[in-house]
Amino acid sequence: MDHLNEKTIKTTEIYKGKIIDLQLEEVELPDGRTSIREVIKHPGAVAVLPIKEDGKLVLVRQYRKALQKSIIEIPAGKLEENEEPKLAAMRELEEETGYKTNSLTFIGSFYTSPGFADELIHLYVTRDLEVGQSQTDEDEFIDVLEIDLQEAEKLIEEQKIHDAKTMYAIQYARLYEKKG
Amino acid sequence: MDHLNEKTIKTTEIYKGKIIDLQLEEVELPDGRTSIREVIKHPGAVAVLPIKEDGKLVLVRQYRKALQKSIIEIPAGKLEENEEPKLAAMRELEEETGYKTNSLTFIGSFYTSPGFADELIHLYVTRDLEVGQSQTDEDEFIDVLEIDLQEAEKLIEEQKIHDAKTMYAIQYARLYEKKG
Repeated sequence: MDHLNEKTIKTTEIYKGKIIDLQLEEVELPDGRTSIREVIKHPGAVAVLPIKEDGKLVLVRQYRKALQKSIIEIPAGKLEENEEPKLAAMRELEEETGYKTNSLTFIGSFYTSPGFADELIHLYVTRDLEVGQSQTDEDEFIDVLEIDLQEAEKLIEEQKIHDAKTMYAIQYARLYEKKG
Repeated sequence: MDHLNEKTIKTTEIYKGKIIDLQLEEVELPDGRTSIREVIKHPGAVAVLPIKEDGKLVLVRQYRKALQKSIIEIPAGKLEENEEPKLAAMRELEEETGYKTNSLTFIGSFYTSPGFADELIHLYVTRDLEVGQSQTDEDEFIDVLEIDLQEAEKLIEEQKIHDAKTMYAIQYARLYEKKG
């Protein structure tokens, strides 16, 4: 797809932060003109849909400063440096919910905001949960919720769940994991 | 959910751009300690799943500088100032694909990256398409693809479609729009 490519002429670092970096890329467009692209660099993230033996989904409620409110999500977190996604997903699951697992099934990876960010989320599902040890980051405060698939679907319909990865995971469960 | 709230102590503007702004928020955590949150402000966006009479999905391929590659997505774009989401979705659909519609059905809205950005995407579906006039932005270069649902699902399985909104929309079609 070479005819769509945008060649970088110059990259300017605007900000290097804790979770994200911002850079401006001056690009040459396919027609030879130039433009500026705003690009957020993100380390990537993992997310897990944990399903208990009784069919309940384990979700978390967390305050998101960007939204100025708490929202319901599947357990998730960013990749640490050089961390293997599957191990990161196991770590985040236990830290956030107190459940641990040794068997995660990979569902897929997706970009969340390709228009301006390179964040890639690796999504897993597990039905094999045992009680572990919750241990959130020092600036992380989380409520754990256990709800069945039907309730989760209702929360999506009512726009009370409105996080892309969570909606995708719940739809996935509906398609592939319905049977308890 | 007051016990999860993070009160803003101070907001520092780092960057004001064409599509995104970046600000740092010093917050008071629920336990009284403080932390810094990196927040991307985005105007919000719309996306449309266009389904032709013969069942084909109309998708677009576009170079995404943040990813350094072209990816396949449903037609989408950011909201202009004070623009009504449904009208924005009609506009983007026609601009990007050359198809127009007067009847969009709202599927739902979702945050794409709540950990660091306030981007909210409003998603629509339409089965009512007529030939209009494509007209991309001056820095936008797009290929239009028409593929059936089964092919689209295969592309997801093969990780050749790996954009969250697009995967969600295709899954939605599989659940609710299968019948031609």
